[in-house]
Amino acid sequence: MKTLELMNYARDQWIRGDGGLRDIPSAIDGSIVAATGSDGLDFAAMLDHARHVGGPALRKMTFHERAWMLKDLGLAIMARKEELYALNPHSGATRGDGWIDIDGGALTLLSYSSTGRKKLPDAHVLLDGEQEPLAKEPGFVGQHIMTPKQGAAVHINAFNFPVWGMLEKVAPTLLAGMPCIVKPATATSYLAEAAFRIMIETGVLPDGAVQLVVGGVGDMFEHLTGQDVVSFTGSAQTANKLKNHPTVLRESVTFVAEQDSLNASVLGPDAGPDTPEFDLFVSEVVREMTVKAGQKCTAIRRAMVPAQHLDAVEAAMTEKLAAMTIGDPREKETQLGALVSCSQRDDVREKIAELVEGGARIVHGDPDASVGIEGGAFITPTLLRADEPWAADAVHDVEAFGPVATIMPYSDLDDAIALANRGMGSLALSMFSNDAQAAATFVRGAAAFHGRMLVINRDNAKLSTGHGSPLPVLVHGGPGRAGGSEEMGGVRGLHHYMQRTAIQSTPAMIAAISGQYVAGAPKTKSDVHPFRLKMNEMELGQTFFSDTREVTIEDIEHFAYFTGDTFYAHMDEEAAKASPIFEGRVAHGYLILSFAAGLFVDPDPGPVLANTGLEDLKFLTPLYPGDTMRVELTVKSKSIKSDETGVVKWAVEIFNQDDEPVATYTLLTENTP
Amino acid sequence: MKTLELMNYARDQWIRGDGGLRDIPSAIDGSIVAATGSDGLDFAAMLDHARHVGGPALRKMTFHERAWMLKDLGLAIMARKEELYALNPHSGATRGDGWIDIDGGALTLLSYSSTGRKKLPDAHVLLDGEQEPLAKEPGFVGQHIMTPKQGAAVHINAFNFPVWGMLEKVAPTLLAGMPCIVKPATATSYLAEAAFRIMIETGVLPDGAVQLVVGGVGDMFEHLTGQDVVSFTGSAQTANKLKNHPTVLRESVTFVAEQDSLNASVLGPDAGPDTPEFDLFVSEVVREMTVKAGQKCTAIRRAMVPAQHLDAVEAAMTEKLAAMTIGDPREKETQLGALVSCSQRDDVREKIAELVEGGARIVHGDPDASVGIEGGAFITPTLLRADEPWAADAVHDVEAFGPVATIMPYSDLDDAIALANRGMGSLALSMFSNDAQAAATFVRGAAAFHGRMLVINRDNAKLSTGHGSPLPVLVHGGPGRAGGSEEMGGVRGLHHYMQRTAIQSTPAMIAAISGQYVAGAPKTKSDVHPFRLKMNEMELGQTFFSDTREVTIEDIEHFAYFTGDTFYAHMDEEAAKASPIFEGRVAHGYLILSFAAGLFVDPDPGPVLANTGLEDLKFLTPLYPGDTMRVELTVKSKSIKSDETGVVKWAVEIFNQDDEPVATYTLLTENTP
Repeated sequence: MKTLELMNYARDQWIRGDGGLRDIPSAIDGSIVAATGSDGLDFAAMLDHARHVGGPALRKMTFHERAWMLKDLGLAIMARKEELYALNPHSGATRGDGWIDIDGGALTLLSYSSTGRKKLPDAHVLLDGEQEPLAKEPGFVGQHIMTPKQGAAVHINAFNFPVWGMLEKVAPTLLAGMPCIVKPATATSYLAEAAFRIMIETGVLPDGAVQLVVGGVGDMFEHLTGQDVVSFTGSAQTANKLKNHPTVLRESVTFVAEQDSLNASVLGPDAGPDTPEFDLFVSEVVREMTVKAGQKCTAIRRAMVPAQHLDAVEAAMTEKLAAMTIGDPREKETQLGALVSCSQRDDVREKIAELVEGGARIVHGDPDASVGIEGGAFITPTLLRADEPWAADAVHDVEAFGPVATIMPYSDLDDAIALANRGMGSLALSMFSNDAQAAATFVRGAAAFHGRMLVINRDNAKLSTGHGSPLPVLVHGGPGRAGGSEEMGGVRGLHHYMQRTAIQSTPAMIAAISGQYVAGAPKTKSDVHPFRLKMNEMELGQTFFSDTREVTIEDIEHFAYFTGDTFYAHMDEEAAKASPIFEGRVAHGYLILSFAAGLFVDPDPGPVLANTGLEDLKFLTPLYPGDTMRVELTVKSKSIKSDETGVVKWAVEIFNQDDEPVATYTLLTENTP
Repeated sequence: MKTLELMNYARDQWIRGDGGLRDIPSAIDGSIVAATGSDGLDFAAMLDHARHVGGPALRKMTFHERAWMLKDLGLAIMARKEELYALNPHSGATRGDGWIDIDGGALTLLSYSSTGRKKLPDAHVLLDGEQEPLAKEPGFVGQHIMTPKQGAAVHINAFNFPVWGMLEKVAPTLLAGMPCIVKPATATSYLAEAAFRIMIETGVLPDGAVQLVVGGVGDMFEHLTGQDVVSFTGSAQTANKLKNHPTVLRESVTFVAEQDSLNASVLGPDAGPDTPEFDLFVSEVVREMTVKAGQKCTAIRRAMVPAQHLDAVEAAMTEKLAAMTIGDPREKETQLGALVSCSQRDDVREKIAELVEGGARIVHGDPDASVGIEGGAFITPTLLRADEPWAADAVHDVEAFGPVATIMPYSDLDDAIALANRGMGSLALSMFSNDAQAAATFVRGAAAFHGRMLVINRDNAKLSTGHGSPLPVLVHGGPGRAGGSEEMGGVRGLHHYMQRTAIQSTPAMIAAISGQYVAGAPKTKSDVHPFRLKMNEMELGQTFFSDTREVTIEDIEHFAYFTGDTFYAHMDEEAAKASPIFEGRVAHGYLILSFAAGLFVDPDPGPVLANTGLEDLKFLTPLYPGDTMRVELTVKSKSIKSDETGVVKWAVEIFNQDDEPVATYTLLTENTP
């Protein structure tokens, strides 16, 4: 194929790097796929462009507008994904491997689009947590808010997932309202550049929202500030150099790191060779060794087995590994493609030698054997065994980033926990067990050392998303060796790109700041019943003030016999009086809710389709027979999900004749927009 | 007074430092208050003791047990606070200043005790966020959990609040389930040691839970791991040195930093000299300059004023400052005590010189004047003015940690935002304005640079907790120069000391791991109605399965006329059919809830006192006339608040005749334990 000349995307222009470009070889045969470089870029100007053009444009959009934008980006990549699959084999990846990267990347954009519309307000400011009363009177409260950081996010990505690795960071960054500068790893930057180009060509991204550097980042780090974020995936060595940069330290630049990880999988003490969990374990370890030629930050490197089953596991695994087809990733029958490059293969060979020197022995595979296509970066899958894992530090410390894993025995559950934690922090750990008590003990003992843990058994294995798959709704990251950070995890993934601020003021001020109605903020009386309004006609804070209704003892008795709820507090004056909280018989909570609906519902067909739920109901003051009640129904938030449907949240407050609050809650309705 | 000999508390023993101790002078007159040192401690052994003795003991306790322990600690300090007030003046602090430190510290323990009992489960594992469905079928789900880190928390504290500064870290650390090693600043370590001793003497702390180092930390940092946490308060210079420690980098040790901060206060564009906001602003800036002699990390250093009002602000402030009584902090009439030490006073004088050199001029005070008691660390409050704040970098970059502030003009709101943010990250910012729109614009433009922001006006000033007061329920911290971290903020403050792990498995497994009932987990049929059980007799997951009840068209009509809720979806077959979500008339949501209560309520007096609320109600499948419904009521969680009262949360699931879920919610009841 013709050599691609990769371009940088700086200040909304495609720019070729100055001077000689660096060749990128194909993993298949060493032929040159692409040439790349970023010399001559003005990195300080790129940061400023992100801060002063991209940031303000993104911050003008609401969370929902940004979420719809992510949907367009994801759909565009889906529509043009074959362009990416055409390049994918040059990274050594089979089509199956590519799915994780390409479809997986697009699906991450779509997942974040959905998270944005379902979990975030259609507003510019995120309310974080509940309102905190700060004084005995209600006029001074605290409310945490989150706003986008006003700098640039610099994403430094690894070679193994050039598309997914870019998009799993781009999605939360843009949704948070922050612009980014993407720096893919050189070895597979042609895939990142192609996917990036598809996004630019959608035309939906505002100027300055994203930029691309296909080469070194020059002096960019010198120009970082405390409003910028570095999100790094790669080796601990590089991470530590960057964390240690004087500007990063001086400015307290947020630094998110995913680095090394000696992920483990554990066969439960209950899971002998005749159990489904044994077979599931063997298959998963082999799969994790060989998918993407083992070049996954979540791949299983250490497999821990009850000592008495270690031989059986070895036999079952070597049988499976021996049957694998290694070769050209473009061929359908190929199960194991190539490593990304010959230099990466050299590194894997070195690391295997370190493992052997450190107390493990090879029980399957020959890392020095010549396999696959001449000039390509192929290697046989290599299984090692460490019979004395506590005397073999290397197996817990050395990560061979290829189709390599080490099996080892454990004596009991405490030993398994200690071995798992000996990895000093990992991204993912799986346990295969049908013994809930053993698994629970294991997870409680090990969770502090692992970012994600799966417990797989015969019941859930078919539904499982697998040991190695980070999911957009779950955090991806781990403590210690793994870098001590988190990415994704739904809304959690936005937090790096936003600043949390505690606001202290009146509720009215917090409503003005957040652009959202909050408890205690002023209400505006609606001239028409708000059930009659289309969603775009509703103003937040617009309120329907109901008539009043007396609640009689007959109402209470009638309701009790009708529903069957004859709880003594409603029916027995003496028993109710004897209770520590009531002065006598009280109205049912559900009677109050039902009467409230009777007072605020406008019956005719209109934009409100149904009551779909209710949140945070608190009963505050009992309602006694003879009391009267009235309701205030206030538009709290609204979000349009599609042309056909939207959700309105209503703040409902019920008062008695003395204006004491009887109950407060949030009502959800489904509306036609 | 007799010189105190301070002791370390290492491995549950009081230990005197080896060799010569360091003298600590009194701020009042330079006489020696105490002698201290930590030479000879085995710091590696202290870390191991925390990890292997303190950590396991704390992790055996539930969140609620740890919360009750904090209450005992807080009450003990309250009971013996006069011992601390006796030492307090030697730090230069008046009794009023001491209140923030001593009562404020105890109240922080009590606030965290309350947070623990109200916001956390009576369990060992914290469920974080909602259950995430991960497959189309319900058998494989995701759930984030948080578990205590299995290392030690090293607290390195500042001199200005020896008691509060210790307790605001100890409270969330212990509540999270992590042991700590406290290293107070030497200058005021006699106060920290005295408060620490009170906590030890309660006898409620398990062995290894807390240790104290009254001196240097020796080689402790060499022995840190990825399960340890460093929580630092002090200068950026020291913070950067520690963050940069090779072990901290290599192990990704969690590093929480509160460092420098040029906090600002802004007089709103609307707030001229004849407004209440003007007076409130002047008083607050003067108060923040002088409380604790200005040695507060949140103190106002930069006061921004509409240009046309700068002279008026200067006049009003200098008048107030001139009237202040400076002197012996033990005297009742003293308003401004001493700085902590003469060396600290030298530093403040140097910084004032830098401010003057950098473009500000002194308009009140003479930092070189001799005031107060001979040999003491007194200084006059010093007000500076920078007429060209954009040409005076020093006023935005140099923190004089004493009774020092600079007033400066701004031209318009954008200029005020830019000046506020020029501080490059701060802990606290206040704005005094009665113009909600101006204040909202300001806050949205500046929030990304500030950890806490107050908007004060005539309505909320009397209720305000003040610019300078961090509160346990609000985050304390700030981006950039302020260190980029957060402390406190209620439950948020525990997160540094816990590891978040995404668990993927069956709901049954997640229930076993968390020791809590989760949706989809197995239910055990209760032999007696659970309303009859005392709280300690209830098992999580214990379930009442109700009878069934048919819902007829007569029920629906009857309910509609009784409550007044005649919404068309319940009353008009044709209109209901025309709706995009119903196939015909449906039962009211509130009718379903009311009938559900009728099905599960056990009427006689017993441990259940009242239904106090309801959470996360979702209506999932409409109930049509002729359908039948039944309820499953499951004990989800329980927490005992006192001998008299507790809260039980019940998972309620309503099904139709086809076992389709009609509605799910969480019901709250108040119970006698």
